[in-house]
Amino acid sequence: MSIAPAEAERKRKPPRSVMRVIDCDVHNEFRNAPEDLLPHLDPQWRHYIVNRGFNGLSMRPYALWQGPDRHDTTMADGTRGSAHFDVMLDQHLNAWNFEYIILTGSSTTLAINYQAQHEWASALAKATNDWTIDTWLSKDRRIKGSMVVAAQDPEAAAREVDRVAEHPNVVQLVLPTRSPGGVAWADEKYYPIWRAAERHGLVVGFHLSADAGNVAPPTTAGWPRSYMEASSGFVVAAQSELIGLICRGTFEKFPALRMASVENGFGWFPSLIWRLDKHWRELRAEVPWLKRRPSEYAREHLRFTTQPMEEPDDHRHLLQMIDMMGSEDMLMFSTDYPHWNFDSPERSMPSVIPDGLKRKIFSENARAFYNLSTS
Amino acid sequence: MSIAPAEAERKRKPPRSVMRVIDCDVHNEFRNAPEDLLPHLDPQWRHYIVNRGFNGLSMRPYALWQGPDRHDTTMADGTRGSAHFDVMLDQHLNAWNFEYIILTGSSTTLAINYQAQHEWASALAKATNDWTIDTWLSKDRRIKGSMVVAAQDPEAAAREVDRVAEHPNVVQLVLPTRSPGGVAWADEKYYPIWRAAERHGLVVGFHLSADAGNVAPPTTAGWPRSYMEASSGFVVAAQSELIGLICRGTFEKFPALRMASVENGFGWFPSLIWRLDKHWRELRAEVPWLKRRPSEYAREHLRFTTQPMEEPDDHRHLLQMIDMMGSEDMLMFSTDYPHWNFDSPERSMPSVIPDGLKRKIFSENARAFYNLSTS
Repeated sequence: MSIAPAEAERKRKPPRSVMRVIDCDVHNEFRNAPEDLLPHLDPQWRHYIVNRGFNGLSMRPYALWQGPDRHDTTMADGTRGSAHFDVMLDQHLNAWNFEYIILTGSSTTLAINYQAQHEWASALAKATNDWTIDTWLSKDRRIKGSMVVAAQDPEAAAREVDRVAEHPNVVQLVLPTRSPGGVAWADEKYYPIWRAAERHGLVVGFHLSADAGNVAPPTTAGWPRSYMEASSGFVVAAQSELIGLICRGTFEKFPALRMASVENGFGWFPSLIWRLDKHWRELRAEVPWLKRRPSEYAREHLRFTTQPMEEPDDHRHLLQMIDMMGSEDMLMFSTDYPHWNFDSPERSMPSVIPDGLKRKIFSENARAFYNLSTS
Repeated sequence: MSIAPAEAERKRKPPRSVMRVIDCDVHNEFRNAPEDLLPHLDPQWRHYIVNRGFNGLSMRPYALWQGPDRHDTTMADGTRGSAHFDVMLDQHLNAWNFEYIILTGSSTTLAINYQAQHEWASALAKATNDWTIDTWLSKDRRIKGSMVVAAQDPEAAAREVDRVAEHPNVVQLVLPTRSPGGVAWADEKYYPIWRAAERHGLVVGFHLSADAGNVAPPTTAGWPRSYMEASSGFVVAAQSELIGLICRGTFEKFPALRMASVENGFGWFPSLIWRLDKHWRELRAEVPWLKRRPSEYAREHLRFTTQPMEEPDDHRHLLQMIDMMGSEDMLMFSTDYPHWNFDSPERSMPSVIPDGLKRKIFSENARAFYNLSTS
């Protein structure tokens, strides 16, 4: 298998990063989407792909001048390194001191949740899960992964969780941060899914979701007009959903539910949770089902992945921002391999962060939250 | 004029607050809306009110269990203290050590911008401005105020700015934080308004805007389901609009434009501006019209009012958050009189804030930004 020129340079170095690391956001891509799904699709659905009536999912209404990937992950033949198991091992899993990596799938897969044809979306989710298990989750004990569902049909989604979640390497149900069809993740509609995740001890991960063309504008200010603008605003959907999940009592109703905010930033969390706590003091007569402060629910049930790392000019501000989160348990390291804005384990964590906290962020918090055994 | 029982207690005290204060968000209300506007409306429009085809504007699709106002501002006859000039003087202007107060109008007035009938909206804006000047801005040199426009018709709005802005006590054009009709404030559509504001040296203030019933849902997660949820999320619209204003080059195109973010919170600003700066480093090929870092535009052109003050459990976090804003010039004190979540000048500013910074927040920053003379 031919490998990009950067390989030679990489091979000169020993595995990097001193501490053990759990990487909570690694993208495993299709080589040929949607054809890769054909062997896993129920026969009744194959004609959608075979007849080319379905050309795959997109999460990206913006042209990315920088391309989707870190350039050195691209193979000599132009394919993505992240689409080849052995290459990912070489480019990523064996390149740093990883205890585990948690696959979050191809980010386009999240758009299953935005498909109008619910039954087709459910079939795509099922095929994607079988492809994920066969291609990625059965080959290396360090590789954990995420399943997907079509949340727009919650009963079918819950059945899919029941079908897949007991695979020992499936640790997460991943959903797009932005809820489908303007129906908030806090809505009662999705309770069957949360109940299933709780039943199987799956973390529910909400991964940054760019907006496919078939959704409403992502802001009250309409469509962003550049990828810079869109990406700067990805934090907004996460805030809107979190407010709903907390205020409508999701964590009272599902006391064992654990949710991970993946690639949505985290610097917005302290002031938002101050605001929610303040409003709870002032307005809790409105939400009598909330028995505790919003910050307590968040700190118990919620974690954030780090990439893209917040980068203040003054590194001490990052340390202060983490302190404002109210707990050293909230952050879990992630690289976003192979994407263009990859955070390296050796370079993305400022030296101002003390070793004890670094250890928590690099591995301890994720190990505890995903119930991973010490390897 | 009969005054609420709290008056007696208040009168026992001398004017409170040690430092001089400029209050950047004071609401002057109508006694009878929309009838108060009748004397100021062009005759061709009066039938809308006289025939009761128009019952006034609403910005509040949520029932507020706490009511709109601080209870002690309500008069014995049930009317709002903020609707009576003399009462506002007594309850507010003379009660603290105010150098100036800046009126932002009745918050419902902002909904003029959401009216579908543009010509009617422009007529309402004109009448409101004349009412504001006659009723509030011609009586006390400490009272400065804001004009309104119907931004959905930018040419008419610019003409209204030209008509009103030269009044010596009009210092601001106030608009709802959320842009009308899903057309971002960053859109070229509004350039005639920014040009007019620049021409007259008016600050453009974006005041928190609840969502009247005739706008799309305020989040990608649909409609908030309580006022607590809605109010927690008001910060989201401000972030979406600021991203657009910066990324599309508004401050390159209007180098003298000054914008105030009023009652939208400020704890979300540091991490958002870090994110924008980072994206500018990475992606500025996409936005070649930006000549400087996003944070530089923001610090030069933008200010935030304080109320509702961020209230972390640990007051030092507030000081750190202000430090993260990158300049001591960014915050301007506000009370939001007479609203329920009023911030008192003597109680809302934590003692952890050093006197020099307190002085800037209480008055110096607003005096400079609004070009107010030292009185």
